[in-house]
Amino acid sequence: MTHASTSAPAPASGSGPADGASPTGDRQAHDAPPSESLTSGSAGRHLAAPAVPTDSARAVLRPLSPGAARITGGFWHTRQQRNRTAALRSGYEQLEASGTFRNFRIVAGTEQGEASGMIFQDSDVYKWLEAVAFELGREDDEALRAMAREVTALIASAQQEDGYLNAVHTLRHSPAERYTNLAWNHELYCYGHLIQAAVALARNAGETELLEVALRIVDHLRTIFGPEGRAATGGHPVIEMALVELYRYTGREEIKELARFFLDVRGREETFPGARPGPGYFSARVPVRETTSVEGHAVRALYLFAGATDQAIEDGDAELLARTEAVFADLLATKTYVTGGMGARWDFEAFGDPFEMTTDRGYAETCAAIGAIQWAWRLLLATGKPAYADAVERLLYNAFLAGVSLTGTEYFYVNSLQLREGALADEGRSIAHGRRGWFDCACCPPNIMRTFASLDHLVATAASDGLQIHQYATGTWSTGAGAAGGSDELRVSVTTEYPYDGLVRLHIDAAPGSARRLTLRIPPFSRGAARLTLRGQDVQVPGDAEQVELVEVFSPGDELELQLDLTPRFVGAHHRLDASRGAVALERGPLVYALENADQPDAVTVDDAAVDPAKIPQPGAAIAELDGAVPLAVDGSVVQVSEAAAAWPYPVHGSADAAETRTAATWTAIPYFAWANRGVEPMRVWLPLEEE
Amino acid sequence: MTHASTSAPAPASGSGPADGASPTGDRQAHDAPPSESLTSGSAGRHLAAPAVPTDSARAVLRPLSPGAARITGGFWHTRQQRNRTAALRSGYEQLEASGTFRNFRIVAGTEQGEASGMIFQDSDVYKWLEAVAFELGREDDEALRAMAREVTALIASAQQEDGYLNAVHTLRHSPAERYTNLAWNHELYCYGHLIQAAVALARNAGETELLEVALRIVDHLRTIFGPEGRAATGGHPVIEMALVELYRYTGREEIKELARFFLDVRGREETFPGARPGPGYFSARVPVRETTSVEGHAVRALYLFAGATDQAIEDGDAELLARTEAVFADLLATKTYVTGGMGARWDFEAFGDPFEMTTDRGYAETCAAIGAIQWAWRLLLATGKPAYADAVERLLYNAFLAGVSLTGTEYFYVNSLQLREGALADEGRSIAHGRRGWFDCACCPPNIMRTFASLDHLVATAASDGLQIHQYATGTWSTGAGAAGGSDELRVSVTTEYPYDGLVRLHIDAAPGSARRLTLRIPPFSRGAARLTLRGQDVQVPGDAEQVELVEVFSPGDELELQLDLTPRFVGAHHRLDASRGAVALERGPLVYALENADQPDAVTVDDAAVDPAKIPQPGAAIAELDGAVPLAVDGSVVQVSEAAAAWPYPVHGSADAAETRTAATWTAIPYFAWANRGVEPMRVWLPLEEE
Repeated sequence: MTHASTSAPAPASGSGPADGASPTGDRQAHDAPPSESLTSGSAGRHLAAPAVPTDSARAVLRPLSPGAARITGGFWHTRQQRNRTAALRSGYEQLEASGTFRNFRIVAGTEQGEASGMIFQDSDVYKWLEAVAFELGREDDEALRAMAREVTALIASAQQEDGYLNAVHTLRHSPAERYTNLAWNHELYCYGHLIQAAVALARNAGETELLEVALRIVDHLRTIFGPEGRAATGGHPVIEMALVELYRYTGREEIKELARFFLDVRGREETFPGARPGPGYFSARVPVRETTSVEGHAVRALYLFAGATDQAIEDGDAELLARTEAVFADLLATKTYVTGGMGARWDFEAFGDPFEMTTDRGYAETCAAIGAIQWAWRLLLATGKPAYADAVERLLYNAFLAGVSLTGTEYFYVNSLQLREGALADEGRSIAHGRRGWFDCACCPPNIMRTFASLDHLVATAASDGLQIHQYATGTWSTGAGAAGGSDELRVSVTTEYPYDGLVRLHIDAAPGSARRLTLRIPPFSRGAARLTLRGQDVQVPGDAEQVELVEVFSPGDELELQLDLTPRFVGAHHRLDASRGAVALERGPLVYALENADQPDAVTVDDAAVDPAKIPQPGAAIAELDGAVPLAVDGSVVQVSEAAAAWPYPVHGSADAAETRTAATWTAIPYFAWANRGVEPMRVWLPLEEE
Repeated sequence: MTHASTSAPAPASGSGPADGASPTGDRQAHDAPPSESLTSGSAGRHLAAPAVPTDSARAVLRPLSPGAARITGGFWHTRQQRNRTAALRSGYEQLEASGTFRNFRIVAGTEQGEASGMIFQDSDVYKWLEAVAFELGREDDEALRAMAREVTALIASAQQEDGYLNAVHTLRHSPAERYTNLAWNHELYCYGHLIQAAVALARNAGETELLEVALRIVDHLRTIFGPEGRAATGGHPVIEMALVELYRYTGREEIKELARFFLDVRGREETFPGARPGPGYFSARVPVRETTSVEGHAVRALYLFAGATDQAIEDGDAELLARTEAVFADLLATKTYVTGGMGARWDFEAFGDPFEMTTDRGYAETCAAIGAIQWAWRLLLATGKPAYADAVERLLYNAFLAGVSLTGTEYFYVNSLQLREGALADEGRSIAHGRRGWFDCACCPPNIMRTFASLDHLVATAASDGLQIHQYATGTWSTGAGAAGGSDELRVSVTTEYPYDGLVRLHIDAAPGSARRLTLRIPPFSRGAARLTLRGQDVQVPGDAEQVELVEVFSPGDELELQLDLTPRFVGAHHRLDASRGAVALERGPLVYALENADQPDAVTVDDAAVDPAKIPQPGAAIAELDGAVPLAVDGSVVQVSEAAAAWPYPVHGSADAAETRTAATWTAIPYFAWANRGVEPMRVWLPLEEE
């Protein structure tokens, strides 16, 4: 195989215009920043989406251009600002305190010692750095940029002559041991996160030093892996997504080919011979293209299929896209919690069997929610189907957001749907500990940071004929080329107190003077009950519409009001989902609610709650200490049993021993994501039904 | 500390008559076999109970004497014979095939190579050897005895000069590393099982070579651990039970003191500094005497508390006994499956939080059921409370027996209460694999073997005034001194087809001519509905009686008939046990029933079952291929849902989307223990209720 060097990249082919003169390799004109900004540290807005299909890609929708998507207020803005001002700094300190930065310094020879932490600890730095990159895209900041440059230089200083870069592995293993334990040593995984950070830094901050590091890594990898090299890949996917993105940024076809190689080699034969606990854990029992249902380690599977979707988009591979859609549909139907949480098992952080969805021990790792958002976002781009935006919304507000405290600096690794009285905080990841500032295995915190920092771009997309609003957040979204706009621009500003209030106001800031299609998603809970006005006039919204599409000649100053129905509702589950039998979950808008002891009277625990599903819960006064979360008052009862019924063996059904007594009670529910911000007390999402 | 050598043992004190002349140390006259049998390999029956309190111990009930307890027919006899004829031989072959015997040969220098298997792999040999010992007590056999002697000699050959004996550890670690990783290296655990085998061999087969090995180990341990030595113990309990039993057999007080030391040092300070996953896993977060609820690794906790109960019995320690009773009661009420299964979590094979009892992922390790039987048996001896025999019964017929195939040679490590369609056999221990001939971690198979082989003794006990029948099995039980009987003997022969038939016939074989108390336990399901006759005359059984006590002058030839009520019944669970909400379990007699696809019509899966709890299931014709198990016909329906209800997100409760359709169906249930003997198909214990 020929080895294309970074200084003389192979020309891009079939991927739109390329800038072969750039020292960072070919780039797509449509998303590459102006070349003068590459090294100058432009202060302009450059926030670019987490996945940016090339012009030739098979994508129905396109991310907005850098600078054309901005959350400026409301629910998510508050959280983004905390992430920016508190979490990124705190993360930097944690990376230092955990020895993660130090590992790089030791490799570079500027410090002495042994490696700290997990074999994949390097990746914590990369995810944090990717978050910083997105924040620089949201708004430049001298101190943040200095941190980014310092850390980039640190990473670069640990790269070996031949391009190899893995600080912990280099310190713990000899060069001869490189790539000898691909199942567990996470070398390709770390590269994947490095590459993602590199592309994010280049796109969002014009910082290209890490991109050069990344390209050297790719060149190095191509000397080892590939159709003419080793037929092998890494135990933990993410390199697939990362390489496609690097291809998108550079236009270098051989990078896309390497991505496809890593995707397809997996499970083709025995990919990880002898590796415990078995190929299913690594999503390698069968090839991606033959998979019917996700299995094994949840984050591994989700990253892999997000990468497969990228590949399908860039290859125009309809068959592969259909496969990823089918697997995603199976995942939602049989292995997804009401919160969007995924991965039922603590053991091996794995997906369970279909409908194995324990509420009290469900793992629902925060990183799995993030992986699912990444996958759904790519499926949305590929297909334009609103169902994928529905999934993103549920994931964001529930499974993802529960993983971080209101302060933005404390995290849950695990997001079970229940905590009972008497639970022991026996493991570091246990929810009984409450959220924590960092973890021995610190994958989740920086993953949360990069998700917050890149959130602006998940809100809306563009197509040739207009703009699609998928999520409702205060801010501005434009079809134009960034902050500069342009004559063909459709720019919409949104103002809303969503998700606590259903009113979404849209203001047309700029319009091209000819007809454009403005698409507004109607979330599932409001279908058949959404109202829309344009310039004060009612617009008919079909009852079952998943989205409303307005084809109009918009004018600057046009106002739209979308009123979404936030009437609280109880939802049930499939009859095979045994863990939720005889219980309902409570939702309002996109929020799944939970009962937490903090809101109940003293001496009453949610462990004994039952609810009356015939009575619609009523919103109460916003809770200031929960950032104005709107509670719901739920009619029901406190259940108690006799001493006999509390003893084992279990009493005969319907017997006097089995009798329960019920005392009427009104329970207060709060959004699930807001639990465990006032200490850690019993909490539950699934609410037992009062039986007749 | 003084070091008592095995050839000059310290005199026993406060523990009854001792035989100081024996080369194996002091022994209790009441349970030691005649000294001439010690080395002669007597062919007589010597089956002695798994725990034999000394005469001075605080025990309300006493195990029957060696030879005075014999299961001779019926349900358990069939299984014991398969264990004897098939499983023990198969186990010998597995121990060879797995390299477990070979580890000892390598240490002894008769073979070259590296250690095979788990660090605690030695213990597999000891548990198997203990089973052989009990079988030699049941009935001598030249070939079995030869195997026992061969393996004993092999073990002895691996003992080091100073008494240390651990084949795997010796091969993998330097002498300097002994006892440096007490949390995980299982050295004391292996000793515990060796000692139990040694006592069983001496008691049941008159074979004392292993006892000498054991006593050298104890002397060795006493040079290292103790009040004046290291304040430490092993990560996995069993040494506590084992040392008390060795004390009971030898009368050597310092052995009991060492047992108490190991018991009390645990959790007193930080017992396993830095050991993952934390002290709770090792039952070492707090001392035993301060524990309120079991936690962590289930088998560790159960063995520990069984040992604590032994200690309480021998020390006459009422406070410790009360503590173990309270912890056992909490365990039953909050952490025990309907099957008696214990340990809800796969991760770390651990107890869950109170009421965390997932049915589809419950671990319920077979060894945990065995540990619980051992604990309950000791509590029964200590207190005489029938509730402990109730627990033994439920554990034996369900949680324990499910762990072995009808053939006796295939095993489940894990005993979840449900297997669904689409379950992946991704882990070796997964029930989706079906039972297996052996495991990488083979703790369960030989543990099952020793339980079957010692079962005769769990059936009945003696007190000064009579005999107590706790379990109903065909055989003979006597208060006399073994097969020889004696003038004071009350001997009862029992004939029954229990658990499939409720009729238990008791025949008085021998009686002393003066009044004796014969106690018959009334199992909980038959309380208020048991009928008893003596010499053809009705005996009044109080409605709530846990046992019936007959104080009579019995005569040889007297007949009693106890008719237990086996009407099938549905049982429910505590309202906090969310995993079983809206469902019932089906029981008949001591058997928990399950639905398995093998018994249902084609194209119908138990995943879709619902049952009508108002209709009493009817017994059907015995299933020959399941050893005559009696099935039950259960009225109910097949549940199906629409496509909309099968999709995610979950449909609104009570909406058209959430509607289910039901088709009337009769389900066939079989005893839970018998599942997975006809292939591995979906199975469930908890049966969803048909809703109104």
